[in-house]
Amino acid sequence: MIHPSAIVSPKAKLGDGVSVGPFTIIHDNVEIGAGSVIDSYCEIGYPTPLADGQPLVIGAGARIRSHSVFYEGSRFGDKLVTGHRVVVREKTVAGIAFQIGTMNDIQGDCVIGDYVRCQSNVFIGKMSKVGNFVWLLPYVVLTNDPHPPSNVLVGATIGDYAAIAAMSVILPGVTVGERALVAAHSKVHRDVAPHTVVAGNPAQFLCDAGKIKLKDGSGDPAYPWTTHFKRGYPADITAGWDAAQP
Amino acid sequence: MIHPSAIVSPKAKLGDGVSVGPFTIIHDNVEIGAGSVIDSYCEIGYPTPLADGQPLVIGAGARIRSHSVFYEGSRFGDKLVTGHRVVVREKTVAGIAFQIGTMNDIQGDCVIGDYVRCQSNVFIGKMSKVGNFVWLLPYVVLTNDPHPPSNVLVGATIGDYAAIAAMSVILPGVTVGERALVAAHSKVHRDVAPHTVVAGNPAQFLCDAGKIKLKDGSGDPAYPWTTHFKRGYPADITAGWDAAQP
Amino acid sequence: MIHPSAIVSPKAKLGDGVSVGPFTIIHDNVEIGAGSVIDSYCEIGYPTPLADGQPLVIGAGARIRSHSVFYEGSRFGDKLVTGHRVVVREKTVAGIAFQIGTMNDIQGDCVIGDYVRCQSNVFIGKMSKVGNFVWLLPYVVLTNDPHPPSNVLVGATIGDYAAIAAMSVILPGVTVGERALVAAHSKVHRDVAPHTVVAGNPAQFLCDAGKIKLKDGSGDPAYPWTTHFKRGYPADITAGWDAAQP
Repeated sequence: MIHPSAIVSPKAKLGDGVSVGPFTIIHDNVEIGAGSVIDSYCEIGYPTPLADGQPLVIGAGARIRSHSVFYEGSRFGDKLVTGHRVVVREKTVAGIAFQIGTMNDIQGDCVIGDYVRCQSNVFIGKMSKVGNFVWLLPYVVLTNDPHPPSNVLVGATIGDYAAIAAMSVILPGVTVGERALVAAHSKVHRDVAPHTVVAGNPAQFLCDAGKIKLKDGSGDPAYPWTTHFKRGYPADITAGWDAAQP
Repeated sequence: MIHPSAIVSPKAKLGDGVSVGPFTIIHDNVEIGAGSVIDSYCEIGYPTPLADGQPLVIGAGARIRSHSVFYEGSRFGDKLVTGHRVVVREKTVAGIAFQIGTMNDIQGDCVIGDYVRCQSNVFIGKMSKVGNFVWLLPYVVLTNDPHPPSNVLVGATIGDYAAIAAMSVILPGVTVGERALVAAHSKVHRDVAPHTVVAGNPAQFLCDAGKIKLKDGSGDPAYPWTTHFKRGYPADITAGWDAAQP
Repeated sequence: MIHPSAIVSPKAKLGDGVSVGPFTIIHDNVEIGAGSVIDSYCEIGYPTPLADGQPLVIGAGARIRSHSVFYEGSRFGDKLVTGHRVVVREKTVAGIAFQIGTMNDIQGDCVIGDYVRCQSNVFIGKMSKVGNFVWLLPYVVLTNDPHPPSNVLVGATIGDYAAIAAMSVILPGVTVGERALVAAHSKVHRDVAPHTVVAGNPAQFLCDAGKIKLKDGSGDPAYPWTTHFKRGYPADITAGWDAAQP
């Protein structure tokens, strides 16, 4: 299950049944959990002194798509899934079932919760903190430098179940509250209260998130989205969501 | 013309004179028209159950640049041209002479007309409908989820000869009319009338497209652009444009 | 130091100690300075008739990260550093110590000064002019067509020491003055005076750049940034900055 054209270090620790595609490189300081599938043209465990010798640890059951690059020194829970050509730098820690979209660029020193889903071309700057069950839509950028260039790095914080729509920028140090929605193409320069919607440049309070209606004909509230969207989450998780709804 | 380092499935159907570059992978369920050139590091016909077994069909005379990924199940007319590292998912159908820019990410289930030109880093979400002779400039994003995340996907519709300038986002279900211009960095949340210009966040009506003057010293109208821009289109096409002008 | 899986043209001119990673392709018309390191999956000197036969020239001490593509016909000073999967087209000329971020797309016919630093996903359109010590943050786009599509290409001009923050678009022909700051997510449609700050869509004058205070507790001015940020610049350069400050 290791393609003959792949270059796999004998020092790398690969779990049972790990598959490595054509032309992929696995460096020394890497641990990959059982049953993971690594596509072609990937470079896994890219060496960097910034990792301080820490290994890249990828949990069981990962699926890493082609042309992706993972640095050494980061750590992922089980069931990591990526699109194509992602980059993840050193010292980022992510929970289980992290979905990284095609062309995501995730800088180092980030803390990312469980079941986070990023769509294409998301950029997560150094020092970002992303909660559980967060959605980052295409071309979302989390910044960290309040007056670039500087040595003051202040990451953004994204609360559980928040969703940030396409091409929005979160400015350094901003907190987006739990279950909030940031509308598309917003520039968010101050904190967003939980379960509210903001929009615009600069982003302004628009309404309580519960006021957004589902466009499926039901007229039910679209937020919190856990009432109606469950695709791909385990049944024990969504059962908890159902029990929590009023 | 198949580089010895390429991995080409014996089941793939390659037309006469197809060229395959170093380290490129061609999977089973692929048909590539005569005279096509596939660069290095490409993965063509990436398998997915979402393709329902349909092949990837690429017409004659294609030029696919390096590091690109095409899923099985999509279909392209003749003379496809791509930049580097594009991704195209399953069940998208495009007409002839489609130009896909570097780092474009084209999701599945899209319908794309003839002679469409996308510049770098364009994102076309699932269910989008793009007409003929459309221009999408760098970092344009066509979205599809009116309240993410949800199961309601409503693509955007882009009319013939429309041009959408850099870093604009088209919101779900919006129709951009024929020959319209969306100015750079706009958020388009409602329909754009044919042959008009919109700009801003949110985008507002700016003027009739015919009022924009060419900055080439002539003072002629810049729109419809078919009056003055013909580079790369066949003579029989541009002759039709000339005949149609008043 | 040339990996056995690399494909290096015997016509390419490689300086002493140049290292070439696995699966990388070096074409004929290439000159690479001594001590340079080219990672894996790169394509260096990609042939194009638009280069008019001019070589790709990369100075000494370059570090080019994986999956990058450089066309023939461009020229870089010493100490070029790139992130992953950059593309640089033909006939661009850049000074020393140019840092190109991951997924940058640099079109042809650009002129770029010394010590320019681009972060991830920057797009520099054809005919752009970028001064010395400029910072382009993630997802910045320099455009060039005032009424797309057309044959009128007018690049942007970015003055020395200017910084353009994330996801800003500079419109064709606009000049951003020396030491200016463009805030995040701005659309810059007219010239920006030196040492001022603009923000918004469309971008408006916000304040003199000297009014922005450092968020490091000092209360010192954040601009010009040369007073407090020196990481990675040579000592003789930063000594000049210190001497120039009042």
